[in-house]
Amino acid sequence: MPLFSRIVIVGVGLLGGSIGLAAKKNKLADCVVGIGRDEANLRTARDRGAIDLATTDFERGIRELGVPESLLTPSDSSLSVFTNLEFGEILPELIVIGTPVGSIGDMVWESAIAIDRDYYPREDGGDSSLPLRNVLITDVGSVKETICARFAGLDAEPLPNGCRFIGSHPIAGTERSGAENASADLFENRLAVITPTEPVQYEDIGLLKRFWHGLGSSVAEMSPLEHDRILARTSHLPHLVAVALAAGLLPEDEPYTGTGFRSTTRLAAGPPALWSDIIDFNSAMILDAIREFEGSLTALRKMLEQGDQSGITAILKTAKRNRDRLS
Amino acid sequence: MPLFSRIVIVGVGLLGGSIGLAAKKNKLADCVVGIGRDEANLRTARDRGAIDLATTDFERGIRELGVPESLLTPSDSSLSVFTNLEFGEILPELIVIGTPVGSIGDMVWESAIAIDRDYYPREDGGDSSLPLRNVLITDVGSVKETICARFAGLDAEPLPNGCRFIGSHPIAGTERSGAENASADLFENRLAVITPTEPVQYEDIGLLKRFWHGLGSSVAEMSPLEHDRILARTSHLPHLVAVALAAGLLPEDEPYTGTGFRSTTRLAAGPPALWSDIIDFNSAMILDAIREFEGSLTALRKMLEQGDQSGITAILKTAKRNRDRLS
Repeated sequence: MPLFSRIVIVGVGLLGGSIGLAAKKNKLADCVVGIGRDEANLRTARDRGAIDLATTDFERGIRELGVPESLLTPSDSSLSVFTNLEFGEILPELIVIGTPVGSIGDMVWESAIAIDRDYYPREDGGDSSLPLRNVLITDVGSVKETICARFAGLDAEPLPNGCRFIGSHPIAGTERSGAENASADLFENRLAVITPTEPVQYEDIGLLKRFWHGLGSSVAEMSPLEHDRILARTSHLPHLVAVALAAGLLPEDEPYTGTGFRSTTRLAAGPPALWSDIIDFNSAMILDAIREFEGSLTALRKMLEQGDQSGITAILKTAKRNRDRLS
Repeated sequence: MPLFSRIVIVGVGLLGGSIGLAAKKNKLADCVVGIGRDEANLRTARDRGAIDLATTDFERGIRELGVPESLLTPSDSSLSVFTNLEFGEILPELIVIGTPVGSIGDMVWESAIAIDRDYYPREDGGDSSLPLRNVLITDVGSVKETICARFAGLDAEPLPNGCRFIGSHPIAGTERSGAENASADLFENRLAVITPTEPVQYEDIGLLKRFWHGLGSSVAEMSPLEHDRILARTSHLPHLVAVALAAGLLPEDEPYTGTGFRSTTRLAAGPPALWSDIIDFNSAMILDAIREFEGSLTALRKMLEQGDQSGITAILKTAKRNRDRLS
């Protein structure tokens, strides 16, 4: 039996598309729905088998599995519709928000509301205690605190329509983007960090872990803040360093770049809009990491100025030891 | 007809071994001799077909093609000996110094002297105008000025025994080392920089160009200083940046590094001894490059401090444009 009746992927880019491919390959859901704005990208995702159904209509994609006739493949007609079933009678559904960091929080809310817009807000005083569907929502954003804080704590307004949110961040990816670059094994032997915040159901944590395990990843659990502090150092700082190197490349130097320069600056080819969001959302932690790095670089520069070759050799050795451990 | 009667590679590591493999593959010489200190590495080079003859005896390797019996393969007995032939009657020989930057200059001198130690120095006033062999010497070091200055200018003592030196630097390599990691196509579609300095024979420049072309590379010609200034920015700076990032990796962060961190720090896995030399030999140019990079990083950090997202986005876009051009 699959883990979910269906998985809805909002934003079928590199990560969303790879989740679709891996979920289909590992049979984690009866049906994978892809919602996006770029029809060509959605078609690519569907043609590659990352999603069963593709739609640009957000509400229909979330609510009814309804998609434009023109995008349906013949086999799609066999798909069942899971609305209007009692909570508990059906397998849970999973909504994965794969949009840029800046819009994830809104997309979580919009997804929960779209399940039944008449149902929420319930200002007529009707019974809103019985959710119609069992929906867990997660995301794949590289920053967690800003996103998770909105749904965390006793003061936070609970998501409507039986939805719960737990943040995820699979530490996987490439500098490329779009469903065309998605891959079914992107998450294999990788680590996915999940960042549950109170109030949280123990069962949801277990479900989300099984999801990432099902995609081939191991799972680490930590607070959103702890995640952001670590990733500022291991991902966001290297990204900015690659960016500063690539941005500083003189046109006349271009022919004299080798594989080393390419490797060190590979991350700089990533999508600027996506990274601008990440940097903005995690700026405090990233600033700490940059300042730390500036200190290391200044120390290295001073050794050079003083001709301290043994000091430089010691740093070269430490760096090699650290880097060799990662291979 | 091959380009050279023989090629002698002094230091059969990643680059030296790859030159051997590529020279054999492209039939650039009748015979490739490998000289080194590490017998196991030399055996690997010979077993992989990078060299025909291997020896740890520097003088014999340079002078007589003589190698210890134990290292000879049966086919070696067919090799001719090129000593004692008149200059001009024979194909030129090429000696490629593949040792770390710090020892290249000495190895060039030692190689030239070893061709005929009795012949040089000629203190008895005998005729030293007739060289016995036609030998071009080059190297593969990542720094050129310190090495080439020793053989440049009218005041420089000329190399004995008909030897001439022109510096080379193939912009190719990996973070790995040793003959086991050598590859016949390492130089294909790469750029080799040659840095001829006066006095130089026009024919030697042509010969060296044909050598690098024969290995699959295109060739750029520039002064040693210009080479060092450019490579400080395109190779030595990225190396130190990768080193500073890798050296600063906290043990507890290790599990949370992804392919991005690995790519950005890949260079840090390079051999510390080799890089310590390069940094030492090109420290002035590298200092300029580091200071420039520190300025870029500080500017980026200030944008973050001021929440200047459009400024950051502009840099992300410049970096992506530059990086995309390299792919």
